[in-house]
Amino acid sequence: EILAAIKRVLGLSPAAPGPLSGRHALVTSGPTHEPIDPVRYIANRSSGHQGHAIAGALARLGARVTLVSGPTALADPPGTTVVRVTTAREMLAACQQALPADIAVCAAAVADWTVTHPATHKTKKAAGAPPPVLALSPNPDILANLAAAGPQRPALVVGFAAETEEVVAQASAKRLRKGCDWIIANDVSEAGNGGRGTVFASPDNTVHVITAEGVEDWPTLSKDVVAHRLAGRIAATLTDRAAAPCPSPAQKGSLA
Amino acid sequence: EILAAIKRVLGLSPAAPGPLSGRHALVTSGPTHEPIDPVRYIANRSSGHQGHAIAGALARLGARVTLVSGPTALADPPGTTVVRVTTAREMLAACQQALPADIAVCAAAVADWTVTHPATHKTKKAAGAPPPVLALSPNPDILANLAAAGPQRPALVVGFAAETEEVVAQASAKRLRKGCDWIIANDVSEAGNGGRGTVFASPDNTVHVITAEGVEDWPTLSKDVVAHRLAGRIAATLTDRAAAPCPSPAQKGSLA
Repeated sequence: EILAAIKRVLGLSPAAPGPLSGRHALVTSGPTHEPIDPVRYIANRSSGHQGHAIAGALARLGARVTLVSGPTALADPPGTTVVRVTTAREMLAACQQALPADIAVCAAAVADWTVTHPATHKTKKAAGAPPPVLALSPNPDILANLAAAGPQRPALVVGFAAETEEVVAQASAKRLRKGCDWIIANDVSEAGNGGRGTVFASPDNTVHVITAEGVEDWPTLSKDVVAHRLAGRIAATLTDRAAAPCPSPAQKGSLA
Repeated sequence: EILAAIKRVLGLSPAAPGPLSGRHALVTSGPTHEPIDPVRYIANRSSGHQGHAIAGALARLGARVTLVSGPTALADPPGTTVVRVTTAREMLAACQQALPADIAVCAAAVADWTVTHPATHKTKKAAGAPPPVLALSPNPDILANLAAAGPQRPALVVGFAAETEEVVAQASAKRLRKGCDWIIANDVSEAGNGGRGTVFASPDNTVHVITAEGVEDWPTLSKDVVAHRLAGRIAATLTDRAAAPCPSPAQKGSLA
């Protein structure tokens, strides 16, 4: 039994049995980094704690989990397969590669824009020259991409919305605009995390779960508890729907 | 003896005796983050490993060490006092606050530019609107500031130069331009770290030590060994010069 647990943690044997056994969950986590030149980049504030915790919680419920992560300082959650990426474009490619999936949870803080012309050499300060101006271009929208109708759309697509004002209204509009099933919204302003300081450096998170049925306001909880609750809600929803699991990679091959 | 060591590590008693006993070293490390809005920022690639290792090595030689660090995932080096900052302006203020010092080692990757008008709310993508353009303004130059002649100039000011082309020539010019005593130069291009991959994620570093006397090419070494060698060279130089240590904070007060 101990050996089986060790094997499971090392990814050498199938996930633990649980309500998500036989399901494949795709989770994104962390920030993306968009290079300006070889030494500088634009980043989003995200520790990756919430996304990594969700990946771990889904694995504990029996799911096979692919975690596509931007740069973080975190250890790989036990029982997950981690794909490391840097930019938003790389993250989209890794997500598409990971399909099909039954569940997609897009917790990464993906850069909306990338630098149009990153420099191949370090940009130098020139005496008397004006500072550079950074021209930006839109990045692909990973959440909208995964939520778009099609044969590979996961049965449940969950997005995140980090807002600093009109949190629930902005996030509800985002749910409709992106075509995802649920949005987990949080207030990332200095005052927005139940008085616990900005969520980025905090172990706690104060979220609103926005679905087609309405808005649930969750109390301030540790990110681990938010992950555990969310994974349980995902499992309950998929069990209710009794949706057929997506084909495993082997089946996918035989269907091709 | 064990208790004394524990106290030393906890900063509860004076530093270990050594060739730098009685000296105060100021070390900067890590990147700076320059906010674009509450969720986005411009960063420099830097793990902080080299700067933190230098701070630890100077403390082991007996120096009182103030480590001014940008955001990193690293533990505080034993025996140092760590001041955490985010932006280049905050780093400069913390360095000025830490003076006087006998030694300044500027290993941080400080942003040359900051965002001229950071947004107080999250900048939203608007359908059909063009991407934003980021206007940048120059940041203060911390190395040039510490190296400028004056009563508080440390006896030895050491800068770093991360270059992607003409490494030694660019770094030698930087030494003269900034007015510092030594420059530690490294090649941060993909091919520049002795074939070990870009230096940012590597435990190794391949540096050139540039002084008024010339250029020393060090072999590829672990960042810890680079730190140990550099601390030893700093101690030897200060002993040779037999410069008087800078006043301690208590003395500073009594002289005011």
